Amino acid sequence: MPRQTSRDLRNESRFEVLHALFSLGPSTRQEIAKHTGLSTATVATLVTQFLAEGVLRIATVEQNTVGRPYERLSIDPDRGRILGIDVAETYVDATVYDVTLGPLGQSEVALDEHENDQAYVVGGIVRAVEAAVAASGTRRDQIIGAGVSMPGQVRPDAGVSVFAPNWDWHDVKIEELLEERLSMPVYVDNPLKAVALSEMWFGVGRETKTMAVVNLGTGVGAGIAIDGSLLRGAANNAGEWGHTLLQLDGRQCRCGRRGCVEAYLGVHGLEMSLAEIDPDHPALRQPLQRGFVDAVAEGLAADDPALLELARRTSHYLAAGLGDLINLLNISHVTLTGWTTEALAEWLLPAVRAELPEHVLPGSQPGLTVEASRVPGNAVALGMATFTLEQFLGALGLASPASAPGTRRRLRTPASAKS
Amino acid sequence: MPRQTSRDLRNESRFEVLHALFSLGPSTRQEIAKHTGLSTATVATLVTQFLAEGVLRIATVEQNTVGRPYERLSIDPDRGRILGIDVAETYVDATVYDVTLGPLGQSEVALDEHENDQAYVVGGIVRAVEAAVAASGTRRDQIIGAGVSMPGQVRPDAGVSVFAPNWDWHDVKIEELLEERLSMPVYVDNPLKAVALSEMWFGVGRETKTMAVVNLGTGVGAGIAIDGSLLRGAANNAGEWGHTLLQLDGRQCRCGRRGCVEAYLGVHGLEMSLAEIDPDHPALRQPLQRGFVDAVAEGLAADDPALLELARRTSHYLAAGLGDLINLLNISHVTLTGWTTEALAEWLLPAVRAELPEHVLPGSQPGLTVEASRVPGNAVALGMATFTLEQFLGALGLASPASAPGTRRRLRTPASAKS
Ligand SMILES: [Zn+2]
Ligand SMILES: [Zn+2]
Repeated sequence: MPRQTSRDLRNESRFEVLHALFSLGPSTRQEIAKHTGLSTATVATLVTQFLAEGVLRIATVEQNTVGRPYERLSIDPDRGRILGIDVAETYVDATVYDVTLGPLGQSEVALDEHENDQAYVVGGIVRAVEAAVAASGTRRDQIIGAGVSMPGQVRPDAGVSVFAPNWDWHDVKIEELLEERLSMPVYVDNPLKAVALSEMWFGVGRETKTMAVVNLGTGVGAGIAIDGSLLRGAANNAGEWGHTLLQLDGRQCRCGRRGCVEAYLGVHGLEMSLAEIDPDHPALRQPLQRGFVDAVAEGLAADDPALLELARRTSHYLAAGLGDLINLLNISHVTLTGWTTEALAEWLLPAVRAELPEHVLPGSQPGLTVEASRVPGNAVALGMATFTLEQFLGALGLASPASAPGTRRRLRTPASAKS
Repeated sequence: MPRQTSRDLRNESRFEVLHALFSLGPSTRQEIAKHTGLSTATVATLVTQFLAEGVLRIATVEQNTVGRPYERLSIDPDRGRILGIDVAETYVDATVYDVTLGPLGQSEVALDEHENDQAYVVGGIVRAVEAAVAASGTRRDQIIGAGVSMPGQVRPDAGVSVFAPNWDWHDVKIEELLEERLSMPVYVDNPLKAVALSEMWFGVGRETKTMAVVNLGTGVGAGIAIDGSLLRGAANNAGEWGHTLLQLDGRQCRCGRRGCVEAYLGVHGLEMSLAEIDPDHPALRQPLQRGFVDAVAEGLAADDPALLELARRTSHYLAAGLGDLINLLNISHVTLTGWTTEALAEWLLPAVRAELPEHVLPGSQPGLTVEASRVPGNAVALGMATFTLEQFLGALGLASPASAPGTRRRLRTPASAKS
């Protein structure tokens, strides 16, 4: 399927205007021009287009004592609805958003990580979608499309491959399977790309165009944006920081390699570290990874000495791993996201910031910030909804009166958008 | 100083045309259009410009039996001359090139690595330049400019900082110092950027726009190009793969960190590895690093068992370090350059290629190539000459009749270019 890259779209003036409205809230044409650096004439032309397409609406009109009235424009939340879906090895999280990417309804379905055939996973996704659609009071004909994050390598040409031990998928055409079951356009990518995209639109991306978003959960990785462009790599597989070395010939990683960052900073890596400190620690008896992480947070709040040592070692590993990322890419904005970040950032971040200068070259230290992501809610689901919105807006922009209908065939324009 | 980035220039059609001529050799307008994907009309317009600027010349005219004669165009080697200068801690290598980047004359001056004040280093550069200019039979008024690679962090705004133990420079304005002494425009960057640029123009860059060029010498690092754009980072400090971890809390690195790739794969790292295998090995008595590397190559050719073990360990370290670079960036074309590559590639490369699949994620393996660079001569000097040529051609392109003379003030247009 033809698919525009994030760079193609974001470099367009159309996206600059919408990005400004996401950042600024309702704004005048002059404010948009000032924020984007576009000429007021260009902004006026684009706004006229967007109004005709129903993407923008006039939010307020202010009458000054002199001159013309000022119209404030906003993205029209009623233009359609978008699904953002985060599929992990143990759950499916589906969220319905309006086109301003405000969440309207959400649903989570548990997946048994030991039963991962395609029909089982697709069934879980469909149940989560149906529940989220119901929870948000959305009619099916309002839905523009769904963005689905899958935990593995996602190649637009070849399909989805997941190399987790219990989930041995090779080149599964999940997009087609889901489009058939859900009867809507579906875009699939992986969580690293999704968190980077949500950070670019709603997080530190409001301040910088170059950033690394480090995900700490069951798996570990980094979504990287350089100069406003998502780093995808030759086969959309970039960002596998979790499978770079912390320790040559060290702990066995589930990727097959030894000593990877993920074997120390993934949730199972934390479990292994705690087992080295105190193999009988009660947190290790939690059956689920999420339960383990929450138990660690509770124990830390109570100054459990074994867990304080775990936090110390984990901070050391994290500072070292982030040092590698920063030295190689000279990226000054690093944000952390994921379960482990949510539960443990208050114990890890201060120690990481204190140790980081020992790992980072002098030339990469000025202006360096490492912080927990401020993106609200499920950043993976939001990122995939953002990606779907980009595709929708890009296709609208291409669909000038002269363009063939084929260019927008996969994107649905809700017939009656006002609900 | 205003400075165009490699991306700005390379994305211009002008550069596409010249890049095609570097790749194809003398070519017709039709061949250039086919190679670049530009329209024949655009190519014809640009060629007319270049002919007027004296950058291109008509190399041959072929008369077919029917139709118009075919003119083959080439870059005019007499348009001017360019200096490419590689400054390392132990030497200065200066080469004079014509604007086709063919070398005309070269000179090397030894530097005492323990005596590194600015006047001493500048003096060495000036002596190398004078000798190379004399060796190439170049008149001073033919010289367009000089590109100088400095072994440290080079920031266009702040100057050059070198953090090597014996060479503690902070924000030295070396460009200004050298322009005053050499009386020509000077551009400074660091060797990682230089080798990447030479690879983009004259190496694997003829086949791909995304590559990592790994330099193995006294220092170790990677020049990275993504989608035709040199990765520079927030402070022009990207590519410091040599200071990413191979072994947490491992060998002391000269950057102050422990366990860096450079502490295992820099020449001093190889010396430490050999000392672990056989502390009395005669190669360790070589006073200079270059002598050590050459002695290792000679011993390997004679099947010295300690050196075979050194090659085995070094290949293991290199496969692991390259695995990190590939997993993080999903780059499929990796080339190796530098002293150690030149001397030892035949022992290292087969073992690295054999081990690499153990380190690289399945999704990043298809199409992966790791090879020694095919860029001829000193890739650092050539890269800096390329950078200078980019600046020169970019400024020519900007200097339309309407443009102010200030836009090209730093670049000299030789008055009488034909020698
Ligand atoms: Zn791994
Ligand atoms: Zn180091």
